[in-house]
Amino acid sequence: MNKMLLPTDVVGGSFWLLSMAMIGAAIFFLLERNKAAARWHTTMTLLGVVMLVSAVHYYYTNNMWLSTGTAPIIVRYIDWVLTHPMQVILFYVVLTAVTSASTALFWRLLIGSLVMVIGEFLGAAGYMSATLGFLIGLVGWLYILGELYMGEAGRVNAKSGNDATHLAFNGLRLILTIGWAIYPLGYFIEHLGGGVDTNSLNIIYNLADFLNKIIFGFVVYRAVMNDTRVNK
Amino acid sequence: MNKMLLPTDVVGGSFWLLSMAMIGAAIFFLLERNKAAARWHTTMTLLGVVMLVSAVHYYYTNNMWLSTGTAPIIVRYIDWVLTHPMQVILFYVVLTAVTSASTALFWRLLIGSLVMVIGEFLGAAGYMSATLGFLIGLVGWLYILGELYMGEAGRVNAKSGNDATHLAFNGLRLILTIGWAIYPLGYFIEHLGGGVDTNSLNIIYNLADFLNKIIFGFVVYRAVMNDTRVNK
Amino acid sequence: MNKMLLPTDVVGGSFWLLSMAMIGAAIFFLLERNKAAARWHTTMTLLGVVMLVSAVHYYYTNNMWLSTGTAPIIVRYIDWVLTHPMQVILFYVVLTAVTSASTALFWRLLIGSLVMVIGEFLGAAGYMSATLGFLIGLVGWLYILGELYMGEAGRVNAKSGNDATHLAFNGLRLILTIGWAIYPLGYFIEHLGGGVDTNSLNIIYNLADFLNKIIFGFVVYRAVMNDTRVNK
Amino acid sequence: MNKMLLPTDVVGGSFWLLSMAMIGAAIFFLLERNKAAARWHTTMTLLGVVMLVSAVHYYYTNNMWLSTGTAPIIVRYIDWVLTHPMQVILFYVVLTAVTSASTALFWRLLIGSLVMVIGEFLGAAGYMSATLGFLIGLVGWLYILGELYMGEAGRVNAKSGNDATHLAFNGLRLILTIGWAIYPLGYFIEHLGGGVDTNSLNIIYNLADFLNKIIFGFVVYRAVMNDTRVNK
Amino acid sequence: MNKMLLPTDVVGGSFWLLSMAMIGAAIFFLLERNKAAARWHTTMTLLGVVMLVSAVHYYYTNNMWLSTGTAPIIVRYIDWVLTHPMQVILFYVVLTAVTSASTALFWRLLIGSLVMVIGEFLGAAGYMSATLGFLIGLVGWLYILGELYMGEAGRVNAKSGNDATHLAFNGLRLILTIGWAIYPLGYFIEHLGGGVDTNSLNIIYNLADFLNKIIFGFVVYRAVMNDTRVNK
Repeated sequence: MNKMLLPTDVVGGSFWLLSMAMIGAAIFFLLERNKAAARWHTTMTLLGVVMLVSAVHYYYTNNMWLSTGTAPIIVRYIDWVLTHPMQVILFYVVLTAVTSASTALFWRLLIGSLVMVIGEFLGAAGYMSATLGFLIGLVGWLYILGELYMGEAGRVNAKSGNDATHLAFNGLRLILTIGWAIYPLGYFIEHLGGGVDTNSLNIIYNLADFLNKIIFGFVVYRAVMNDTRVNK
Repeated sequence: MNKMLLPTDVVGGSFWLLSMAMIGAAIFFLLERNKAAARWHTTMTLLGVVMLVSAVHYYYTNNMWLSTGTAPIIVRYIDWVLTHPMQVILFYVVLTAVTSASTALFWRLLIGSLVMVIGEFLGAAGYMSATLGFLIGLVGWLYILGELYMGEAGRVNAKSGNDATHLAFNGLRLILTIGWAIYPLGYFIEHLGGGVDTNSLNIIYNLADFLNKIIFGFVVYRAVMNDTRVNK
Repeated sequence: MNKMLLPTDVVGGSFWLLSMAMIGAAIFFLLERNKAAARWHTTMTLLGVVMLVSAVHYYYTNNMWLSTGTAPIIVRYIDWVLTHPMQVILFYVVLTAVTSASTALFWRLLIGSLVMVIGEFLGAAGYMSATLGFLIGLVGWLYILGELYMGEAGRVNAKSGNDATHLAFNGLRLILTIGWAIYPLGYFIEHLGGGVDTNSLNIIYNLADFLNKIIFGFVVYRAVMNDTRVNK
Repeated sequence: MNKMLLPTDVVGGSFWLLSMAMIGAAIFFLLERNKAAARWHTTMTLLGVVMLVSAVHYYYTNNMWLSTGTAPIIVRYIDWVLTHPMQVILFYVVLTAVTSASTALFWRLLIGSLVMVIGEFLGAAGYMSATLGFLIGLVGWLYILGELYMGEAGRVNAKSGNDATHLAFNGLRLILTIGWAIYPLGYFIEHLGGGVDTNSLNIIYNLADFLNKIIFGFVVYRAVMNDTRVNK
Repeated sequence: MNKMLLPTDVVGGSFWLLSMAMIGAAIFFLLERNKAAARWHTTMTLLGVVMLVSAVHYYYTNNMWLSTGTAPIIVRYIDWVLTHPMQVILFYVVLTAVTSASTALFWRLLIGSLVMVIGEFLGAAGYMSATLGFLIGLVGWLYILGELYMGEAGRVNAKSGNDATHLAFNGLRLILTIGWAIYPLGYFIEHLGGGVDTNSLNIIYNLADFLNKIIFGFVVYRAVMNDTRVNK
């Protein structure tokens, strides 16, 4: 058993909350999968796997925090290396559920998301200069945004004529624009700005993950269920 | 392995009992989900997730009690921050299973329940004055009751003309009125009244959770199964 | 890791055997559930949950035994407080699967079983005199038997005209008559008679649980599968 | 964490391999269950439960080996007390999937298998003379073989006229004849012959379990899938 | 709890990443199984089991690394002894999903893969000369390649006339040719060449497993889903 969670330990409390919320969300999405129309099953599977992988990481970090009072930032990056590309690929999966998109789009989105997380990872872990890592990560993120607003992904969405897809696509794109901005921002402040105390950074990243994973998930869920009701 | 559970340890026994009952209830609801009519699946999923999240918290607290003889109250609040909003949202999910309710109702119920638990949490953890936290929590709870008795939720229920929904809605509303009163009451006694010994408080809260989660769950379950039998 | 299980440790061996048998039985019933006709699903779910809750308790007690050489009797009582009412309710569930029984019967069976286990529990844990607890427990048990042989439950079974129900009902009633007699008997010998060495008591209770849970479960399973084959 | 597994530790390696293989086989059979025709579902469930119970025992023994360098033989016997009767009952389940066999056959096979494992268990654990336990175990095993080659089981198989049943029945019978001979042989050498070093015995028993459980399982699986393809 | 994962610990990070990726992939394939056409179910089951067994091994090795700073190479070999034959058998399963292939092919592939892994295992663990083990392993691998390019497997694929099968078969064959070359190469460098520092070897093997298991799995997945869409 670990140390006791204290009421004054906001960071520890937020880790705990996130780990439980991720477990709950994972089970929710995985169970509701079979209520969705069959064409949305892969979407729901991917959502569930994102939540589950995050749940394992938060559960580990929560235990680590309770026993040592620190939370290794590297575990966050490993989590993001796995879950961020899965989330970007969700755009492709959502589009191909109701319309057709080129395989090239899949690869462009995958590579863009890998450039983003690996760039930030290499910079944060010290394998390259923090500035270079930041810039590479930024390029990956901006490329994805370009793809979503002006590239093939955006065009496919526009002409799909499916309300559910529009809803999901626009909601997710908004989260990717605003919510994901927290990651380079946190990175910038931590490594290039004046620095920030670790506790604030952990709380900010926990809030970001809550928005960018769980709220993200429910935006998709709502669109999937709307479409299942209408077009079944 | 932890210390031995003693026959004289009523608090420890009640933690143990609750953790096992929550696990059993979680598995029961999750399995019976596929026996319910499809329109009730989300209801059952939500019930199962509430039980499962509670089970993890009680399992942790039970272990903590066995190894240290104390049970961190903050873990209860984190549990409530997650499960109480889910339970309030169940009203919305139950209503939309058989009739239509506005999305605004969903948001009002969610926000009301968040105001309630976050108010109490901030007061209990010492982030604001105990009195202020108590009052904010009270406002959230009373708002939800108003919504259920006199607001849109109550009206939608009244005109749904579905016996199962009436049964569930009225049963749940009664639990939210009487059973949930235990939480502000416990809070008041603990923080504002003369105080109470921790053991009594733990037993009271455990009984409250048994009523407000497990009995709550079976009220929903019974209504769902009645409706499945009649309207399948 | 715990201490080693020795060949000469009959009590430890029986705990181990029971914990594995309960896990195996739980998985068996939960998997075979979807082979049963839909009206028997709740019956199978309840069986699986009984086994699973027992499996957790036996698994815990087995570990406790291996690490300390003792097995807290209070854990047995908590297990029985949860599983015995569930088993008594199985009579109601079995009857309502093929015929109709009054809701009052459900409550009478539930209350009877709670009187039985809570009476014994309070006496065994020392919250009331051992004799009084014994008598209260006895009253609960005899009331259930009366209900099953001469009360509404017996009558509903007699006129159900369903072979599977007869088979299950009579088999279960026999187990409740003979097998459950071991609990008040063990209680009497331990608390009111001359006492008995703990090891013998543990082995007797383990054998009783094997009969009253696992064999009990397979009696129900056989009836369910016969009825599924004949009346599908 | 336990000690490290060394490349030179053949016994430890074989425990590890077996525990992983059992887990893999359990999941494989449990998942493939719903691909089999409905009449084979109980067969597949039983196979999965046998593998799962074995997996738990091997997982425990593997951990025990890594932390203490010994493997309690009594855990093997408890495993066999549970899994060998289940495997013998598989003959009955396989026969009743496609033809009818008397309930008496079920009881004769169950009792024969219990005589076999309990006899060996009592002898090995020292509750009766090693020779007597050996002979009782031998009688149980030979009785089962007699039943399978010349008794009702053999006759039911012969006249079932189902290729899949023949295939499974004959394959399993061969494994019971040759593979299960390892158990009395190992017992004889260990307790009545000149003895054998524990490491060799562990490796022999691990190989025997691999043949008698996993290969046994795939013989059934192949027959089930052939029959599902042909007679669906 | 184990030691903290440091940003500079590339080996530990890659173990962590692999263990999480394997868990995610296992759950993904097992869930998507029921979206595939029924004839592909065994393929998906096998994929899921391969990932799950690997996940357990990587999870163990990751913990071992965090607590001791070393990763026992023998655990890799046990993993390969189990998963490589399963992967080779996937060729057979993929072929028999849409066309017929001789049972002899199954046995030749199984034996070839066992020769490969057992040869390498015996050499690496020191039970035979490193050179002999290397050569035996090489023979097994080359035999499988021969079977896939020029033997029955290749011919069955060529004449199956099923696009999905061609896609999967050719993709897997490419991975077996290029990706699996890493194992004998690593073996050669480690045991016969000048040696290599353990850290580099671990990273190389982790990358190899990522390609040869997870990418391998998604090649199969894509073919299965294409075929399900076209020929359902």
